Amino acid sequence: MKAMGKVYLIGAGPGAADLITVRGMRLLEQADVVLHDALVEPAMLEYAPDAKKIAVGKRCGQRSTAQHFINKQIVDAAREHRLVVRLKGGDPMLFGRADEEMRALEAAGIEYEVVPGITAALASAAALKRSLTLRGVSRSVALATHSRAADSDEIREQAKADSLVFYMGRDSAPAIAQQLIDAGRPGSTPVAIVEACSTPRERALTLTLARMALGEAQEWLDPSQPSLLMIGEAFRERASAKPRVHLKGMQFAA
Amino acid sequence: MKAMGKVYLIGAGPGAADLITVRGMRLLEQADVVLHDALVEPAMLEYAPDAKKIAVGKRCGQRSTAQHFINKQIVDAAREHRLVVRLKGGDPMLFGRADEEMRALEAAGIEYEVVPGITAALASAAALKRSLTLRGVSRSVALATHSRAADSDEIREQAKADSLVFYMGRDSAPAIAQQLIDAGRPGSTPVAIVEACSTPRERALTLTLARMALGEAQEWLDPSQPSLLMIGEAFRERASAKPRVHLKGMQFAA
Repeated sequence: MKAMGKVYLIGAGPGAADLITVRGMRLLEQADVVLHDALVEPAMLEYAPDAKKIAVGKRCGQRSTAQHFINKQIVDAAREHRLVVRLKGGDPMLFGRADEEMRALEAAGIEYEVVPGITAALASAAALKRSLTLRGVSRSVALATHSRAADSDEIREQAKADSLVFYMGRDSAPAIAQQLIDAGRPGSTPVAIVEACSTPRERALTLTLARMALGEAQEWLDPSQPSLLMIGEAFRERASAKPRVHLKGMQFAA
Repeated sequence: MKAMGKVYLIGAGPGAADLITVRGMRLLEQADVVLHDALVEPAMLEYAPDAKKIAVGKRCGQRSTAQHFINKQIVDAAREHRLVVRLKGGDPMLFGRADEEMRALEAAGIEYEVVPGITAALASAAALKRSLTLRGVSRSVALATHSRAADSDEIREQAKADSLVFYMGRDSAPAIAQQLIDAGRPGSTPVAIVEACSTPRERALTLTLARMALGEAQEWLDPSQPSLLMIGEAFRERASAKPRVHLKGMQFAA
C-alpha cells in the first residue's frame, strides 16, 4: 500500500481569519492541500498560499451523496499528499458532519487529528459583549438546531434551558419563537440575532421572543448569510452598556 | 481625567499555548500588562515576554470579594497602561464571570473588546475525536455546571438534552449521574471524562452513567486538575476507531 499522509480536521472559526487557532494557522502554513467549506472566508486561505485548495460542500446543509463525495475527496487527498487540511467552518465537532469524515478516514486507515475552532455561539457572545451564562440568571446553555422534523416535545425540553442558541435557524425563527412561547417561555424574553459574525458583513438585531414569533426578524435577515439566534435573559441589555457601535452595521429594534 | 487604555478580555482556550486564537496571540504580543487566571498555562504567557504579568483569581471558583478585587485591578491597569489583556481560561463568555468584569469596565468608562476562546467542551471533543452532535443521534448539546444548590428539576430538564457537558463537575460526578438516571437516562449511557485537556497532563476515561453513579470515576480523577464530564450516546466508542494512543496517559475502563 502507498504511504499515506495525515489529515487535520480544523475548525476555521466563525469567519475572521484571525479567529482560527494558532495551531490551525500553523498547520495551514504547512499544508499541501486544503479542502475547505464554501463558508470559509477567502482571507483564511491566505495562510496557505502554496497549497492546493479545493472547495467542498454547500453553504447550508449537504445531502448525504455530497457528504459521501467529500469523504472520498479527503481520503484520496491523503493518499497523494503528506499534510492534508480539512478546513471546516466553526468547530468541527458541532453540527459539522465530522463524524462521517472521521469514520471514512478510520475505514481507510488514515491517521488524523482534530483541531477545535471557535463556534459561532462563542464568537457572537463576544461580539455582543453578552455572557452566555450569568450567575443567578443563566446557569446553562443549550446549542441546538431546529429541524423541521423536530417534534414539539424537543422544543419543550429546550424551553427550560437558561440560554438557548439555535444554529441555522433563520427560516424557522418565527416557528422556534412560537414553540418556545407555547412551552411557557415569556414573550418578553430577549432575543439577539447575529449575522455573519466576525466578518465585514456582521450585523446584530435584538428583539423579543414575541416579536420574533410575529416574523419581525425575517425582513431584516439576509438569506445569503449565516445567522445565529440567541434566546434568554442573559441577552437582555445591560443598563451600563454603551451603544455598541463596535459592531458594523448593527441595528437595534426598540 | 487621565487618558485610559483599552482592555481586551481574551479567552486563552483549554490550556495548550497554540489553542489560543491568532487574534489573542497578537494582542498578547502587544500587551503592556496581562492579568491572567491561575489556570492559564505558563507557555501561553511567553507570547508576551515584555508585558507585566499579574496572576488573578483562584483555580476553582471565586468568592465575590475576590472578583470585586479582580475588577478593580483591571480598571486600575487600564488607567495606567495603553493595552491591557485580561486572559481568562477557556472562553470568557461561558462560566467565566466576564459579565462582572464588563460591568466594571463600563462603569469606569473604559473601552474594551472580547476575544473568544476555545471552550473545554470543543477541545475535549476534538481530543476524543467524538462529535458533540451526531445526525440522528444527538441534535443538541447542553453546557452546564452542577451547583450544590441546583434542584432536581433542573437536572431533570437537562436529562433530556442529547449531549450533556458538565464543567467543574468533578466532586459531584456521582450525584450528577444518579440524578440523570433517576430522571430517566439509561445507566448504560456512555460517559467520557477529559482531564487537563490539551495540556501535557491530559487524560481521558470512558465509563457508563451507572458506573459513574457508583463513584468509579472519583478514584481516577485528579483533584488538582480541571476536568469535564461528557454524557450521551455521541460519546459511545466507534467500532471503526483505532486505539486512541494520541492521548497522553489515556486510560479506558472496560
